[in-house]
Amino acid sequence: MTAPLRIGIAGLGTVGGGVLKVLERHAELLAGRTGRRMVVTAVSARTRSRDRGVDLSAARWYEDAVALAADPDVDVVVELIGGSEGVAREVCETALSRGKHVVTANKALLAIHGTGLARLAEENGVALSFEAAVAGGIPVIKGLREGLAANCVTEVHGILNGTCNYILTEMRETGREFGDVLAEAQKLGYAEADPSFDIDGVDAAHKLAILTSVAFGCAVDFDAVHIEGIRHISALDIEYASELGFRIKLLGIARRSDGGVEQRVHPAMVPVSSPIATVDGVFNAVVAEGDFVERVTFVGRGAGAGPTASAVVADLVDIARGRVSHAFGVPSGRLESVRAAPPEERRGAYYLRLMVVDRPGVIAEVAAALRDENVSMESFLQRGRAPGEAVPVVLTTHDTDEASMQRALASLSRLEAILEAPRLIRIERF
Amino acid sequence: MTAPLRIGIAGLGTVGGGVLKVLERHAELLAGRTGRRMVVTAVSARTRSRDRGVDLSAARWYEDAVALAADPDVDVVVELIGGSEGVAREVCETALSRGKHVVTANKALLAIHGTGLARLAEENGVALSFEAAVAGGIPVIKGLREGLAANCVTEVHGILNGTCNYILTEMRETGREFGDVLAEAQKLGYAEADPSFDIDGVDAAHKLAILTSVAFGCAVDFDAVHIEGIRHISALDIEYASELGFRIKLLGIARRSDGGVEQRVHPAMVPVSSPIATVDGVFNAVVAEGDFVERVTFVGRGAGAGPTASAVVADLVDIARGRVSHAFGVPSGRLESVRAAPPEERRGAYYLRLMVVDRPGVIAEVAAALRDENVSMESFLQRGRAPGEAVPVVLTTHDTDEASMQRALASLSRLEAILEAPRLIRIERF
Repeated sequence: MTAPLRIGIAGLGTVGGGVLKVLERHAELLAGRTGRRMVVTAVSARTRSRDRGVDLSAARWYEDAVALAADPDVDVVVELIGGSEGVAREVCETALSRGKHVVTANKALLAIHGTGLARLAEENGVALSFEAAVAGGIPVIKGLREGLAANCVTEVHGILNGTCNYILTEMRETGREFGDVLAEAQKLGYAEADPSFDIDGVDAAHKLAILTSVAFGCAVDFDAVHIEGIRHISALDIEYASELGFRIKLLGIARRSDGGVEQRVHPAMVPVSSPIATVDGVFNAVVAEGDFVERVTFVGRGAGAGPTASAVVADLVDIARGRVSHAFGVPSGRLESVRAAPPEERRGAYYLRLMVVDRPGVIAEVAAALRDENVSMESFLQRGRAPGEAVPVVLTTHDTDEASMQRALASLSRLEAILEAPRLIRIERF
Repeated sequence: MTAPLRIGIAGLGTVGGGVLKVLERHAELLAGRTGRRMVVTAVSARTRSRDRGVDLSAARWYEDAVALAADPDVDVVVELIGGSEGVAREVCETALSRGKHVVTANKALLAIHGTGLARLAEENGVALSFEAAVAGGIPVIKGLREGLAANCVTEVHGILNGTCNYILTEMRETGREFGDVLAEAQKLGYAEADPSFDIDGVDAAHKLAILTSVAFGCAVDFDAVHIEGIRHISALDIEYASELGFRIKLLGIARRSDGGVEQRVHPAMVPVSSPIATVDGVFNAVVAEGDFVERVTFVGRGAGAGPTASAVVADLVDIARGRVSHAFGVPSGRLESVRAAPPEERRGAYYLRLMVVDRPGVIAEVAAALRDENVSMESFLQRGRAPGEAVPVVLTTHDTDEASMQRALASLSRLEAILEAPRLIRIERF
């Protein structure tokens, strides 16, 4: 048997605890699969005293995670601190530049500094692995980078944030409003005390930027992601979506075309018959479209100690076996810089909800505003007549240019008879 | 750049043609991903003259595929001949024993001789790769073996035969009978002229045996698979399934428990809400359950030139990159020989359809036969009264031992009032 793989873990929160548990419970199994022992030789965390249910007496303790990353008795550093700057970044850079492999679950770091870290890993002949950074336990980085390596991938999309998917699922199942369900999710531990990273779409955007790079072989470009969160989704929209045969999901969508690469995170309506429409609760899904394989879908748990630790340890197994890939599928010097196609270039269908004064002529005004921008309606719903009061008017459009749609929206907003900001949700038919 | 990877392809049918096309169209892309050129240096097929749309003039032509497998200018042999014995087997054994990697889509060969071939590959320090043998383009072998390597996998199940799934989907959507839909599938090229391998469940069983070995780390044991096909599924059962909230799918199911490993291929009713219930047409799905990752689902095209070639070339990319795994996840000497749990040990729910004479007392006789074996009914449907004629009686049971159920079935078959062999379909709630 080859020498043991010596692991240093920086960050012993939920995921770190999970990793320790996997390594302990499956020590024999993993040795069988890799031909090597996996030994935790160093750990670092904020509090030393907490009981993590695993004996850590043989591991060296570091107050300073960066010092751990420089420990000569460590072959692989597992970075589970989080955040795109500061200690996490320093840990990864220190480890890589000293010729240690890095396994990380840190999507923010990779979304911002991924290309540079990949270069640093290459220069030092080590692995930069991040299966756990996207879609938790689902082996989607491996699936895209290696499993679909024979393909030119033209599209990748998915449900990348479990918190949002849980909230949207609950809203649909109970008819409750966003704020109410969010508060409950926070109590249950499905949402953070400060939930903005999740519900404003930033977390999903980090993951999408990583997926885009792996799928298309282009440099990570987080700044190019168009981001909208789910705060403005109301129970009413979810109800109308069901009535029209759709589900509302927070999606990350990346498409490559002649116009460049388009990256968007926003709530979208998907037909109930589409495979991801039924991916509910905290589950994640990633769908990739390759020119030979066609459509492949991966579904599983996108978060939690067990699933995330599963992904971290899968990366460790690859490293122990010497199965090393370029971080984003090709050498960092070959990652293309592709034009970022702006969201205005989208062409597709839209759902629009207006709250209008119920008086004669209003619908004619709405119809005229759409017609003036060449937006063609596909369906139109108006119900609940209470003269003089606000009534919802819901319509869906045929395929339209986003730019036209936005101009129509601006005109609509100026109409006196329209009482709230119009709600626009993109329709995606996969 | 490293020396080119020299590929010999034995068998230039649909899949072989697809592989040539991928290698030609994506030559640059693949070189970028692997750092090497992939060059087809030798080919072998039944007819030389057929136009395969790709220039093969630089490749050496072999009448005899086994001679190709011995060509010193070949690093990897791609075996696409098929069949568990004869030329295909000889090609693989020749290649491996001469230190050449083997990539194959041949499920029959692996299901029967997988363990021995894996040993031969190890002895010669080369790869035996077979992503294309199970679920076509879906990277499920890689997903299980590497992506879920941190887990003890306890269950794997899926829709493994696209022909059967197409037929069952068509039957449900059109209300037509099995024979009628099969004939149409044959015309459309979705079913073979001799369809028995597919519709009798043998093809799915080959794939299941491979999945079982990869998932659980046990020796491939095709003989232990309990196999039932879909010939006896009638339009009536499909209709009742829908009414009861189920879909009928041909499933492969492998479970590991204290009693050993259970492997079954048979039609099953799954709740419409379960993720694989909506996997329709020629699509395949594989679901794995790991102790840390929990449930992961993979969906995609299970057959066809493009998807299958995608899987073959993904294996070639791994070999070109030097990413080599044990064929079944652990060294062949460590593959466990596990007790095969016989199907009689299954415990679960059942659907039963009886055609009975509509006369007083029949239901009491049916109920008594079930009660005598401690089979407890969950639901009961009887409709369409035409005195003296055969009427369908449909019932579902609570969880029951398969052995009890089979005894009850035998008793029922002996009742004079029961006019046809009772139809039993297992219910699987995933």
